[in-house]
Amino acid sequence: MPPRSASPRPWPVVLLTDFGPGSTYVGQMKLVLESNAPGVRTIDLAHDLPAQDTVAAALILKGALPCLPRPAVLCAVVDPGVGSARRILAAGFGPGRVALLPDNGLLAALQAWGRPTALRAVTNARCFRHPVSPVFHGRDCFAPVAAKLAQGFGLAKLGPAVQPSSLAPLPWPRVRAGLQGVRVIYADRFGNLVTNLAADAVPPGAKLAIRLGRRKLTLVSHYAEARPGQAVALWGSFGHLEIAVRDGSAARILKVGVGSAVAVRAV
Amino acid sequence: MPPRSASPRPWPVVLLTDFGPGSTYVGQMKLVLESNAPGVRTIDLAHDLPAQDTVAAALILKGALPCLPRPAVLCAVVDPGVGSARRILAAGFGPGRVALLPDNGLLAALQAWGRPTALRAVTNARCFRHPVSPVFHGRDCFAPVAAKLAQGFGLAKLGPAVQPSSLAPLPWPRVRAGLQGVRVIYADRFGNLVTNLAADAVPPGAKLAIRLGRRKLTLVSHYAEARPGQAVALWGSFGHLEIAVRDGSAARILKVGVGSAVAVRAV
Amino acid sequence: MPPRSASPRPWPVVLLTDFGPGSTYVGQMKLVLESNAPGVRTIDLAHDLPAQDTVAAALILKGALPCLPRPAVLCAVVDPGVGSARRILAAGFGPGRVALLPDNGLLAALQAWGRPTALRAVTNARCFRHPVSPVFHGRDCFAPVAAKLAQGFGLAKLGPAVQPSSLAPLPWPRVRAGLQGVRVIYADRFGNLVTNLAADAVPPGAKLAIRLGRRKLTLVSHYAEARPGQAVALWGSFGHLEIAVRDGSAARILKVGVGSAVAVRAV
Repeated sequence: MPPRSASPRPWPVVLLTDFGPGSTYVGQMKLVLESNAPGVRTIDLAHDLPAQDTVAAALILKGALPCLPRPAVLCAVVDPGVGSARRILAAGFGPGRVALLPDNGLLAALQAWGRPTALRAVTNARCFRHPVSPVFHGRDCFAPVAAKLAQGFGLAKLGPAVQPSSLAPLPWPRVRAGLQGVRVIYADRFGNLVTNLAADAVPPGAKLAIRLGRRKLTLVSHYAEARPGQAVALWGSFGHLEIAVRDGSAARILKVGVGSAVAVRAV
Repeated sequence: MPPRSASPRPWPVVLLTDFGPGSTYVGQMKLVLESNAPGVRTIDLAHDLPAQDTVAAALILKGALPCLPRPAVLCAVVDPGVGSARRILAAGFGPGRVALLPDNGLLAALQAWGRPTALRAVTNARCFRHPVSPVFHGRDCFAPVAAKLAQGFGLAKLGPAVQPSSLAPLPWPRVRAGLQGVRVIYADRFGNLVTNLAADAVPPGAKLAIRLGRRKLTLVSHYAEARPGQAVALWGSFGHLEIAVRDGSAARILKVGVGSAVAVRAV
Repeated sequence: MPPRSASPRPWPVVLLTDFGPGSTYVGQMKLVLESNAPGVRTIDLAHDLPAQDTVAAALILKGALPCLPRPAVLCAVVDPGVGSARRILAAGFGPGRVALLPDNGLLAALQAWGRPTALRAVTNARCFRHPVSPVFHGRDCFAPVAAKLAQGFGLAKLGPAVQPSSLAPLPWPRVRAGLQGVRVIYADRFGNLVTNLAADAVPPGAKLAIRLGRRKLTLVSHYAEARPGQAVALWGSFGHLEIAVRDGSAARILKVGVGSAVAVRAV
């Protein structure tokens, strides 16, 4: 990506972390962003993920991709390996699209953008804030580098090229042939249970039979189609199969959480 | 409202949702806003409401009205009927004031602004993000339409005029003659209990006797007037009667929540 | 600080409150800021502090100081004394650095900036929003004054000079000679326990023996150095000694909270 010479306005930085809503860790990242790229705007993609939940982070990244403005810097700090030898990756996807994230599989969530046009390990310590705290790379590595990227700094200057084959895998539970292996991977604030089954993994026109434990779930198209208190399945806003209870929390009422199996069959 | 031709800067968009602080649902709305109105600024009015609590949403809207900047687009997505036939309303209140909200009674919270100067049902699907998820109109309908409004798009192009008589009512518990029917309608983070009794509903100069269960509550003007641990009543920052415990949570200490009756008499 | 005559762009306002993430109290402050300083940008330093916890607020302010952009208005509303006679302070620290905070000891957290170059009690009621709610000075006093400061309003016009000797003290637990008096003062979202022991209070080169109850804690440099589930001590991102459990919550696993003593000895 060539540096933008004439643009005085930094790109917006989209932030995804597990630091918690209203957390000072997010706040400190924003202070560093503003210090390094005055006037930069930040957009909070989410901060309420369960701590260190890279699968939830991947789901949220995947769900957000179709909405992302262009240009934007996408900066994801869900990073159980902070301070260890895990790499920080900067990935470009054509003009106006750059992502900064730990090498823990999150990059796989961006596959709808195709293969990166540039992929670098961020090692140039001159881009970091010093001293670098070994427990807070979000503030001392990610934020200052995101500020650089927002100002058009070229990826090549951040560090060496990375071979895609060397990337860490994402511990995403795969849906196998015959719709085997469907599980809950995320519970939202309303207690809706999002599974790993994406709509595009289902044969077109297939009718689905869905069970959670011994409970059979009707597939509806929106909440109001269910009776109040009824547990149903639907294609949610992530494009994945979700389990919901109308006017209630499926997580609480069905006593189901992340990891629970959902039986899905094409009939 | 005439389109603004020369203004390159979108109006700020004020967001009220029950999606939860730090939620990716708010984040996705902001991504869509930025995609559709580059440079738009958003102001979070609140996201921590109890799920689907339209009465709390109305209280918060009412409390915020006197503070709202002008111009601004007010966008409220507390929307139990998402995906059903409930309408989305766009209401103008003179220059620089426009609100976008579901037709579930929330509009009544804006009555301090007077009657809308324009009132439309948002049906023009060309303004939506496609495909429209039937469970996430916040992202696919409200956000792109708010982006249009922030850029001066005229309300008339959004859809047909709405008759005020056709609006859905708000399930707000009314205070009846003789100050009957006072109830707790909202508990804030500190455990302060906000009632439906607005200061302007009390006869000027009236002295009030206030009881919660068998407990008599003194009316004070601010927390520091109470003894630590004492439960008191006061006119809170919403302009409504509140019950508070100094240096403590009235909700927890008094074991009182939304819906509880408060006995108020003018003496 | 001279008024800035030619700058049309307000300084960013950095907000620290205990109002809760996604709270409408923060939202109302932002509405008032935008109403009084159109186009002003706000940066959320933190809103998730335990209610009225001035020690946690001081820790967060101290930790954020090295990251703060310049210029900026720092506005802290952790204010148990709201409505009482406690003063509101405006403190300047040379060009581009101004803080607005209650006189409850928080100012001491800014000592890394040196002595204030200007220190005023904010009494000029013409700068407030009226009527002033005695329970919400954040909205009616802090926000409108922060808006003024963001636009270059001189401190001298806000109210009379304050003698440093008259300032309220911060109830910060002191670490005494011989590293006595180390306590937990803050628990973050991950359950990491931050103590009052700053790295610069330890003699250079000293080796530390650390105990929590009967448990001996190894001092590591980052989480990945610990075994999963192991409780360790480390110098955290605030520059203070922290107690952490790798891949877990020290607060929950060790059943330790704010106020707990930590035994630290130089050996």
